Parts: sequence; C-alpha cells; structure tokens
Amino acid sequence: MAKSPETEHPVKAFGWAARDTSGFFSPFKFSRRATGEHDVQFKVMYCGVCYSDLQMVKNEWGCTQYPFVPGHEIVGIVTEVGSKVEKFKVGDKVGVGCLVGSCRECDQCASDLENYCPKQILAYSSPYTEGTIMYGGYSNLMVADDHFVVRWPENLPLDIGAPLLCAGITTYSPLRHFGLDKPGLKVGVVGLGGLGHVAVKFAKAFGTTVTVISTSLSKKKEAIENLGADKFLVSRNPEEMQAAAGTLDGIIDTVSATHAVAPLLSLLKPHGKLICVGVPEKPLELPVFSLIIGRKLIAGSAIGGLKETQEMIDFAAKQNILPDVEIIPIDYVNTAMERLLKSDVKYRFVIDIENSLKAE
Amino acid sequence: MAKSPETEHPVKAFGWAARDTSGFFSPFKFSRRATGEHDVQFKVMYCGVCYSDLQMVKNEWGCTQYPFVPGHEIVGIVTEVGSKVEKFKVGDKVGVGCLVGSCRECDQCASDLENYCPKQILAYSSPYTEGTIMYGGYSNLMVADDHFVVRWPENLPLDIGAPLLCAGITTYSPLRHFGLDKPGLKVGVVGLGGLGHVAVKFAKAFGTTVTVISTSLSKKKEAIENLGADKFLVSRNPEEMQAAAGTLDGIIDTVSATHAVAPLLSLLKPHGKLICVGVPEKPLELPVFSLIIGRKLIAGSAIGGLKETQEMIDFAAKQNILPDVEIIPIDYVNTAMERLLKSDVKYRFVIDIENSLKAE
Repeated sequence: MAKSPETEHPVKAFGWAARDTSGFFSPFKFSRRATGEHDVQFKVMYCGVCYSDLQMVKNEWGCTQYPFVPGHEIVGIVTEVGSKVEKFKVGDKVGVGCLVGSCRECDQCASDLENYCPKQILAYSSPYTEGTIMYGGYSNLMVADDHFVVRWPENLPLDIGAPLLCAGITTYSPLRHFGLDKPGLKVGVVGLGGLGHVAVKFAKAFGTTVTVISTSLSKKKEAIENLGADKFLVSRNPEEMQAAAGTLDGIIDTVSATHAVAPLLSLLKPHGKLICVGVPEKPLELPVFSLIIGRKLIAGSAIGGLKETQEMIDFAAKQNILPDVEIIPIDYVNTAMERLLKSDVKYRFVIDIENSLKAE
Repeated sequence: MAKSPETEHPVKAFGWAARDTSGFFSPFKFSRRATGEHDVQFKVMYCGVCYSDLQMVKNEWGCTQYPFVPGHEIVGIVTEVGSKVEKFKVGDKVGVGCLVGSCRECDQCASDLENYCPKQILAYSSPYTEGTIMYGGYSNLMVADDHFVVRWPENLPLDIGAPLLCAGITTYSPLRHFGLDKPGLKVGVVGLGGLGHVAVKFAKAFGTTVTVISTSLSKKKEAIENLGADKFLVSRNPEEMQAAAGTLDGIIDTVSATHAVAPLLSLLKPHGKLICVGVPEKPLELPVFSLIIGRKLIAGSAIGGLKETQEMIDFAAKQNILPDVEIIPIDYVNTAMERLLKSDVKYRFVIDIENSLKAE
C-alpha cells in the first residue's frame, strides 16, 4: 500500500493544500525527503502566488494531483545541505522556481534549457524521480536538488523579489531570446498583471520603448507613472489601435483569458514577434494572412533554464527591478485566490510563510 | 470619364479575363503602357497558374478588380527596353513574378524586401503608380519596371521554370530566412500541391531530410519516388503522427484550406518552426499551450524580394530544380481552374501563351 503524504518521507512538513477542484485551501501535514547528497533543504520564508496556482488548483489543465500544495516562487534560508553540495551552505538565501528536476542528459538540458526538457519535474503536482508527488512552496520547508536552486543576491529583498522566480524569468527569457532586449526597440506588453508588470520593468531596463496594451483605460496612470511605461494603448479603441499599427518590434502577451491576436499582430512592424506567455484554456483564433503579409510570428515561451534564471535574478538585483507585491498571511490565501481571479491585486500576492504559517 | 482598358494606354494587348466572381474566363482586349525609361517590355511565352489566381478570381480576399487578368509566373522574351535600362536588352529571356512595384524608399525596400513594402504593387488587380489597374500574365505582352524583372538563366526552361517565380520563391524564402536550409535538419512539408512539391525539391537541395505530411496515403509513392522526399506521414493516422512527434526542426505548411495546426506543432522539436505560406480563408485554431511548452513558433512568409528571387532562380538553374508542370493552351484555363480546385494537377498548370493565345 502506498504510504500517506505524512509518512512517505522522513522529514515532517506542513503547509496549506487544496483537496479537490473546489480549490479551497486548508492546513495540511505532509513530509519531505531526507536531504540527499545533492540536495539543499531550506526553510521557506516567502512564496509568491502565481496565476497558474489558481489554474492548477481548479485542474484547468487536467493534470492536478490532490492534495495540492501550490507555490513555485519560493525563497528561503538554507538549513541543511547534502555532502556533495558545493554551491550552498547553511544560512544562505536561496530560491526555487517552477523547476525542481530534469533529465540532465537531453539536448535541452545540455543547452541549459531544462525548461524544455521533456522529463522536467515541476515544483508541484509532478512526480519526483522516486515517484512521490511534489508539494510546492505554500509550506514551511523545501528540499531540492542544488542544480535547481538559485543563489539569492544579498541586496535583493526575499519577500518582494520572490515573484521573479516565475513572473520574472517568464518575461525576461523571451525578451532576451527573441532579441527584444536592444535599446531603441519598441516593445508592447499586453495585460498588466503579475507577468505583465514585470515585463514592463525588464523591457524598460533593456532600454526599449514600452507600450502597455490593455482593454481598459483605468490602468494608464499606473502603467506610466508607477511602472515607467512610455505609452498606453486601449485595445478596445479602434482609432488608437489604428494609429499605432505597424509600430512595434515585438509584444509580450501575458493574457491567459481568451482574446483576439489579430489586433495585436496589426501593431507589429514587418517581421515583428508576438510572444505568448499566458496560457488560455481554449485555442485562440490564428489569422494566417496577418502573419504572411508581414512575415510576422507568434511564439510561445515557458519560464527559463536555471542558468538564465540565475542571470535574471542577478540582473534584477543589479538593476533594482522589483515586482510590486501585496504581502499576505497564509490564512488569507482563499481570499487571495478570489481576488486574483478578478485581477484585483497590484500585482502579485506573496505569502509571508515565516510569520504566518504555523503547525497545527 | 475614365478611359476603357482598351484605350487607357497606347500599346494594344490581349489576354483572357474573368468579368465577375463567376470566375469564367474569356478573351479580353486591353492595353499596356508605353515602355518608360526604366521599363522592360516583353512578349509573354508562358505563364503559370497559381492557386491564388483561383482565390482572386472568386474575390475570396475581397480585393479583386474586374475585368481580372491573372498570372504572376510570367516568362518571356524582351521586345523593348527603356532608355535607362542597363540590365536587359531585346531578345533576353526574363521573368516577372508577383511584384511589379514598391516604394523603393522604406526600410523594407532598403533591405531588399520589396515583398513586405506596404506600398507594393502586385502583377494583377493592383493599381499601378498612375492609377490604372494591373493586368497579369494570361496575356500576350507585359511591361514592367526593370527592378522587378528577373534575368532568366540560359539553361532554365522557360515553360517548366515559370512557376518558380511564385511557387519557387514562396517556399525558398522561408526555408532560407528561418534557417531551414542546413544539411542534416529535418524539414516537413504539408500539402503536396504547386507550392509543396517545390518546397520538397528546395529542401532536398539544401541537404535536409524531408518528410511530406499529407491527409492521404495516395501521394506517398509520388512524394518519395518522384519528388525525392525521404519520409511520408499521413496526418490522419494518429499512430504515425505520435511516432513522429518531436522530430522536425521546421515545417513549411502550404495548405490553403482550413486545417488543424496542433498536430503539426506536435511534430516539431522544441524551438521548432511552423511556417505558413498558404492563405486559409478563415482563421485557424491556435493552441497557445503547444507553442509555450516547446518555445515553438508559427510564422508566415510571403514570396520574396527581388534580390532573393534572382538568387532563387539562379540556384534552381544550377541545381536543376524544376517544378512538375502540365502545359495547357489558354482556352483550357476554365477547365484548369476546375481541376485546380480539386487539386487535380501534378503540380502546376503552365499556359503556353505563345502557341495558344491569339488575338480575336
């Protein structure tokens, strides 16, 4: 008989879990594996709340394993390291993002693109190498292979910085890979949520001119005054959209809801790039003619590899790029999920694990 | 009052035109402009029949001007050149493809990408600089600015080679631009029609391993034995498609009918590229998640610039890459269109203008 979450591993742990697709969270006792030779064990201090936590808890992608402990923007302080770990020592500040494992042998892994390894293991709801299901960062303790642990820069706040581990790398990586990181380029950002607001900050740090594209004028002041965007376009205003046609080199589209891509393609210059990082539940409409007449492209991008994640974190620390967050206690998480569904957060909830998560 | 097609220009010309969306062709008298300083006048010898001629004659894209003389795979022999034309002389073999004009000033034109110039002028149904509507190559005589005239290699047959001017460059350009021209790469070609069969030949000439993807097994023998494809996949066979998942670096999708892109994306390796060159009338379904998990992209590509078209023609001549054609007389064109609609041609009709088009 399979062991229970509480007894399958030797190290006691606790967190908050959802038991089913209702998505309701409550306290949950489970266990973590003993610290292996290459493992880093750390006390979780803060954990960001990603929109995909919400999509997963409702099993929108059909792969959620319950009980479900989300959290893949996990920062903390090392409490134990395995005998072969050289990069980290007890007391170090560290972070773990979406990835906790990969095959380490395929072409993708060999190219520091563990995020595209077909055998990647995610921080939650994925079976780990020995078969037990991973639990994420809405918990007191984390154990991860040191290859998947990020060194946290001294000057980067643990709490505010946590969302960089997913929202940060998810937007940084495509800006870099698709060459949208050159000063003078014109970059659009669609959707001003957890991902979008960080995309604006990275794009600005790269020296591009940033246009935020939103369905509503209500975010204009915030986008320009607080986030530093240069321009703001209301996608429902045909005159504004027409006036901006053919002006952008690339767009980072962070929207997870069903939306039209044709108006976004029309904003691109010839050879422009529309990069999707949000995951709509249903297929969008692909207007092939719009791609053809300007040799435009639509691509997807998923988080980033570990090398690039470390590079991104170091870049953010150096450039002082910080997400805008609302710090919450763990017992607020059910309310937070309701507010997240309504985009009622500027722009990322971060759970103060250390000060609010108590063993029952 | 606007002049009639027959009298608006000084040089008498004749061809076959459709008068309305019925798409029925019959003889048509019109006129061509006098040969300007930079113009090349040539006697049309052969003209290919492109699938877009069929789409245009039925006004599928809503921009057809009637009377409509199609034809943008036009080859012939120079009969007169303007005083400032240095590249061509009377008696030269030449070709004109889809483009007969562009602004010559914008970034695209400056980059030899006249095909993406927003002011490009097409060989038919486009207003020329002075406002008269262009008539295409289903006609006895052509006049074009020398910048848009291609030098025809001596060893390239005029008749069989004609389709290279559209089908050739439409597939050559994306193979080159998207880096699918490297020996050892694995390239898929979807749709074995006028475009697809030339795509197979170019991809083979570049040294790639070519997989033809078709809805029906009936084209397998032809694809492998006659066109030189290495593999053949039936897209309606789930086992075959599953076995080939993640194996291709790129795909040239030539299909103009509505079709599913998700199964094609699944054939791509991570970072693989699906390039659309066919123009479906309605939007296709875009499965964003499939793009994201492998950082894949979907792009469009439209013909090519003049410099690249000349390069393609010279490459085809050197490598002996010739379309498979069925030569027809002009009075067969109505039947040819019916057959084209059913994909009943291997693989391109070419009209023998010289021997079959007679002034009434």
